[in-house]
Amino acid sequence: MAAKAKIGVLGASGYTGSELVRLLVRHPQVEIALLTADRRAGQDMREVFPQFSHLVLPKLVSIESIDWKAAGLDLVFAALPHATTQKVIKDLLGKVPNTKVVDLSADFRLADPKAYARWYGHEHHAPELQKQAVYGLVEVYRDKIKAARLVANPGCYTSCAQLPLVPLIKAGAIDPDEIVVDAKSGMTGAGRAAKETMLFSEVSEGFHAYGVGHHRHMAELDQEFSAAAGREVIVSFTPHLVPMNRGILSTIYVRATGDKSANDLHAVLSSFYGEEPFVHVLPFGELPQTRHVRGSNMTYIGVTADRIKGRAIIISALDNLVKGASGQAVQNMNLMLGFAETTALEQIALFP
Amino acid sequence: MAAKAKIGVLGASGYTGSELVRLLVRHPQVEIALLTADRRAGQDMREVFPQFSHLVLPKLVSIESIDWKAAGLDLVFAALPHATTQKVIKDLLGKVPNTKVVDLSADFRLADPKAYARWYGHEHHAPELQKQAVYGLVEVYRDKIKAARLVANPGCYTSCAQLPLVPLIKAGAIDPDEIVVDAKSGMTGAGRAAKETMLFSEVSEGFHAYGVGHHRHMAELDQEFSAAAGREVIVSFTPHLVPMNRGILSTIYVRATGDKSANDLHAVLSSFYGEEPFVHVLPFGELPQTRHVRGSNMTYIGVTADRIKGRAIIISALDNLVKGASGQAVQNMNLMLGFAETTALEQIALFP
Amino acid sequence: MAAKAKIGVLGASGYTGSELVRLLVRHPQVEIALLTADRRAGQDMREVFPQFSHLVLPKLVSIESIDWKAAGLDLVFAALPHATTQKVIKDLLGKVPNTKVVDLSADFRLADPKAYARWYGHEHHAPELQKQAVYGLVEVYRDKIKAARLVANPGCYTSCAQLPLVPLIKAGAIDPDEIVVDAKSGMTGAGRAAKETMLFSEVSEGFHAYGVGHHRHMAELDQEFSAAAGREVIVSFTPHLVPMNRGILSTIYVRATGDKSANDLHAVLSSFYGEEPFVHVLPFGELPQTRHVRGSNMTYIGVTADRIKGRAIIISALDNLVKGASGQAVQNMNLMLGFAETTALEQIALFP
Amino acid sequence: MAAKAKIGVLGASGYTGSELVRLLVRHPQVEIALLTADRRAGQDMREVFPQFSHLVLPKLVSIESIDWKAAGLDLVFAALPHATTQKVIKDLLGKVPNTKVVDLSADFRLADPKAYARWYGHEHHAPELQKQAVYGLVEVYRDKIKAARLVANPGCYTSCAQLPLVPLIKAGAIDPDEIVVDAKSGMTGAGRAAKETMLFSEVSEGFHAYGVGHHRHMAELDQEFSAAAGREVIVSFTPHLVPMNRGILSTIYVRATGDKSANDLHAVLSSFYGEEPFVHVLPFGELPQTRHVRGSNMTYIGVTADRIKGRAIIISALDNLVKGASGQAVQNMNLMLGFAETTALEQIALFP
Repeated sequence: MAAKAKIGVLGASGYTGSELVRLLVRHPQVEIALLTADRRAGQDMREVFPQFSHLVLPKLVSIESIDWKAAGLDLVFAALPHATTQKVIKDLLGKVPNTKVVDLSADFRLADPKAYARWYGHEHHAPELQKQAVYGLVEVYRDKIKAARLVANPGCYTSCAQLPLVPLIKAGAIDPDEIVVDAKSGMTGAGRAAKETMLFSEVSEGFHAYGVGHHRHMAELDQEFSAAAGREVIVSFTPHLVPMNRGILSTIYVRATGDKSANDLHAVLSSFYGEEPFVHVLPFGELPQTRHVRGSNMTYIGVTADRIKGRAIIISALDNLVKGASGQAVQNMNLMLGFAETTALEQIALFP
Repeated sequence: MAAKAKIGVLGASGYTGSELVRLLVRHPQVEIALLTADRRAGQDMREVFPQFSHLVLPKLVSIESIDWKAAGLDLVFAALPHATTQKVIKDLLGKVPNTKVVDLSADFRLADPKAYARWYGHEHHAPELQKQAVYGLVEVYRDKIKAARLVANPGCYTSCAQLPLVPLIKAGAIDPDEIVVDAKSGMTGAGRAAKETMLFSEVSEGFHAYGVGHHRHMAELDQEFSAAAGREVIVSFTPHLVPMNRGILSTIYVRATGDKSANDLHAVLSSFYGEEPFVHVLPFGELPQTRHVRGSNMTYIGVTADRIKGRAIIISALDNLVKGASGQAVQNMNLMLGFAETTALEQIALFP
Repeated sequence: MAAKAKIGVLGASGYTGSELVRLLVRHPQVEIALLTADRRAGQDMREVFPQFSHLVLPKLVSIESIDWKAAGLDLVFAALPHATTQKVIKDLLGKVPNTKVVDLSADFRLADPKAYARWYGHEHHAPELQKQAVYGLVEVYRDKIKAARLVANPGCYTSCAQLPLVPLIKAGAIDPDEIVVDAKSGMTGAGRAAKETMLFSEVSEGFHAYGVGHHRHMAELDQEFSAAAGREVIVSFTPHLVPMNRGILSTIYVRATGDKSANDLHAVLSSFYGEEPFVHVLPFGELPQTRHVRGSNMTYIGVTADRIKGRAIIISALDNLVKGASGQAVQNMNLMLGFAETTALEQIALFP
Repeated sequence: MAAKAKIGVLGASGYTGSELVRLLVRHPQVEIALLTADRRAGQDMREVFPQFSHLVLPKLVSIESIDWKAAGLDLVFAALPHATTQKVIKDLLGKVPNTKVVDLSADFRLADPKAYARWYGHEHHAPELQKQAVYGLVEVYRDKIKAARLVANPGCYTSCAQLPLVPLIKAGAIDPDEIVVDAKSGMTGAGRAAKETMLFSEVSEGFHAYGVGHHRHMAELDQEFSAAAGREVIVSFTPHLVPMNRGILSTIYVRATGDKSANDLHAVLSSFYGEEPFVHVLPFGELPQTRHVRGSNMTYIGVTADRIKGRAIIISALDNLVKGASGQAVQNMNLMLGFAETTALEQIALFP
């Protein structure tokens, strides 16, 4: 039996960090060798996430205490805040160039340095790495990911919108200038930072939109939809918060091109995803619910006709912490390290 | 001091029924004289809704046991299922023509008998009354309501969409053919009937769309938007269910006409609603949340620019059981009986 | 018509503060003349609590900016953090001795300076006022409250436990040494401070106990139960957090004295609360739910027999922000200013 | 490689049925060969539980359509309603005596026919089988289960109470006559039947007790606690409903015997469960939360001292659908079929 791959998780005290640990402890080919959490350094993982109380895991350490060479990691997941990430990964890859990295932040998702500077208000700290980074939407970039050293894991909102839309735009089946994405997310998408607006009593029993007109995820959508269309595409995208923990549902309004019907759009998607293990297109007219992918790495997509001729409504649903973050990241790792792509990701959704 | 008006509530065991009772018991000019609930006839209201345990209320009776003349009611609220309603109100108004009626069902909302037959699959049982019925959206039809004998209380989804859109369509400020209404509702909108799909465990911790492409509320929107535009208008409307009890939020995507900006749309709405007690337009760029109108009769409306030139995003929020049903109904009653319009409706939202 | 009483609310940016405002804006005999919130000073109330967006309210100011004499307030509600409160009230009453105060913090609830020092770890900063303060559980201390200048509004957990237990202990109907109070509270009881443990994703879809064995509310229970019994009483009290906003339910396990049955305990409570407007004893065997008092000032109490002979189970439910805090405080104000006790407090619970 | 065991699930349209399927489809040594659901016979599993949409599973059939001999099942899980179960299992075992059965209903939990008749109001329909049935609490009856043909899977509430209490009663460490179990459960424990009281709007944002003094789970507790004590034991047990899907938390109030402290009780439990894979005793003073076992087969137990001398508070938490039902059932199957006990059960809790 081959030795297990040694894996590090940077930022293990956040939700995407704990979700990585949840998946990795049941992965037969890897060993969690390192867990970091700067503010919780010195603590046991169970003090930060009690669901691991019955397991033995490495103690949490600070990033600056790590000797990267001695650590000898095969792959590192970075689940760190924006901007910090660039510096940490630059330092890491400078010291141990053979270690691979899956970055769950937004830092390496934009390929164009100018787009990065415009959306984030400063120059990128690691422009050379930015060029190397591969955008990690497996169903679109699988081959590039296999060969990558640094993968930029896509955002949760953007994964949910891209999976149904990229094939349709590529196929020329919809008008890219008439797309409205009305997206709804559970609260874990907002992370674990203690903010008044994220308190239970501020969030339960209510619903609202936020970041309307200026959400940073738009940059990522612009890049990928423009790539799919071969010209500049800007979509209307509005995120909302649902009083639930996990899940994103995107209601997408599109206009089919030519004489195409909603059925034709369904056929394009069914064909594109026929063999994919983690994207499932429902029978025409059936629509997904977030609860049916909760905790799983699946994306469910439904297509139906609008009552306005020529228009269709497409709904996609995924778990923002799994296919929208940590599950996608493990899927990327599996490709990068040569494991079977579905390993440790086949758990069925927890419903109810 | 004048005698109090005698009021009946038909269908007091449902949520709109209990909400009417909640509001009416604190209305200084009315007396609840009759409560019906066919399946719970003979029970006390507190057995059906324990929040009334400390109050003295009429026992629940069946509709067929009522002697309408002896009852001597000034006004009746009908919170009954579709189709039953037509028959009950026809019988009632036949026997006591001076009693006024506010109907909370959909039975008298459509003025056109053909539209009714097309959406509901059968001829209307009381076509003469259908002609007399006044559509009870107070902010649009206040004067007609004052003189009405039978008011058709608007639907919850449709109220939430009409309040922001009708003034804009009337003003010619938006293109009526490019409206997308993405609506999200709390669970009380689905009523109190025991259905598997409404169980807590089926609904909590998840989000989904339903009735896509064929929701009956669309007929009501078609009628009112066409009236506002002076020509046929069909909008794209998609309802969703949020794991919360109360509230509807509509995210509305519109294209302004001519060179108008989102600011211009905001100005139209601010002007239209300047004096209204129950519709409040937030400062430009601020967006409402359902929790901030919970339990109140307010509608909050926000307007912001989309990042796509010429397009705006309008968000409206109301409590589906209050302004979307029973509060609106009491507002109609206040007008029909000559009371101050805001009586018993000024309660502030319960947040958190 | 008499001039309205001028009221101040200190700490209007917290949940008990906003709840006071919610109740007071509909009180016909008072005027909200002052709102403070140190960290939000200079803002409008609607920026802190958008449910007030359509109302005109005083701007938020800092406490230190107030000229108490010029303010000319009849009564002040203090909804401030522990310890700060003592200093603010001492200063206030030093400058305007005729202003009355209802304090919603725990600072003046313990009459015994030694008990205070033991539970809070420091000497009281205003021991003279501590002596004057009247404990504001209206149903027990109504007459003293009418004459008080400073009322210490009871805690939410302790109100919920005292209302059923004090009459039973006073009547000698239960063994005070065998009381177990298993209490469950909604999240608003924990306040609005941004803490990781209060985030939606940490709290929803789960249940847990906290502060087991050492919760500060115990000091208040000890004081009041000992007073009722005429000797020292210590009860077992365990608080839990429920993923809901409002409500406390206490499940109380007691042993009846002598040959008394659960029915006898029910009779004691029914008799004690027969005339009370805000405490309602349900028919024997019926048990209350928190949702049926949500947003109202009611406490519902149920009594049933345990299957173990001689033992009974008593369940009480109230809304922690209303009868457990701000509603109780307004009830105290009504008594202190000579208004009808129920004014502005008769709103029915918001269910569903 | 050995052939996979052929497994049937009777009652696959309920929550324990779907949970069995969730676990079994990832069990490497079994094949789901049969799924029944009388009212949904002829449908695909994905129509009943859309989370299985991407899997291939047997179509749902009615029980009466099954030819048990031809089916050739190695083991059957019965997740059927009370009373029906007895008849189905009697018929099944009459026809295929070598098939093994794990019954998730309450039908075979009570060993004493008189106790059964008293609690359920009728004679048992399969008294011979009742004698053979082994009570399936693995941590207490592991050896008997390995040899059993028919295992009665324990109830969810009772598992949560027995796991901490049985070892303490057996060890004589607590007074069996002074036990109070205050239990709180998520809504899935009430099943999937459409009842008004289980609707989202009846359940969310509230908390209540039910079945106080007469819940059928008490019979099971009486039997097992009496067996552990060697004499008759009756405990006080009160169930409550929490607005969450999964999880049971039991707050247990006990009096230690002799001079024993809460620490001594903790030592008894730590020793008893030292080697167990699915019961974990937290460090003294730490208390479990349901969310940290959600979706996993773990039971977490915490022990702390009460402030009343000689008394302790013990809190146990498990997922009612996993360790409280279907996970426990699979654990039983693993023992009965000679598989490693933890197979398919090592999934980590889904938090948040």
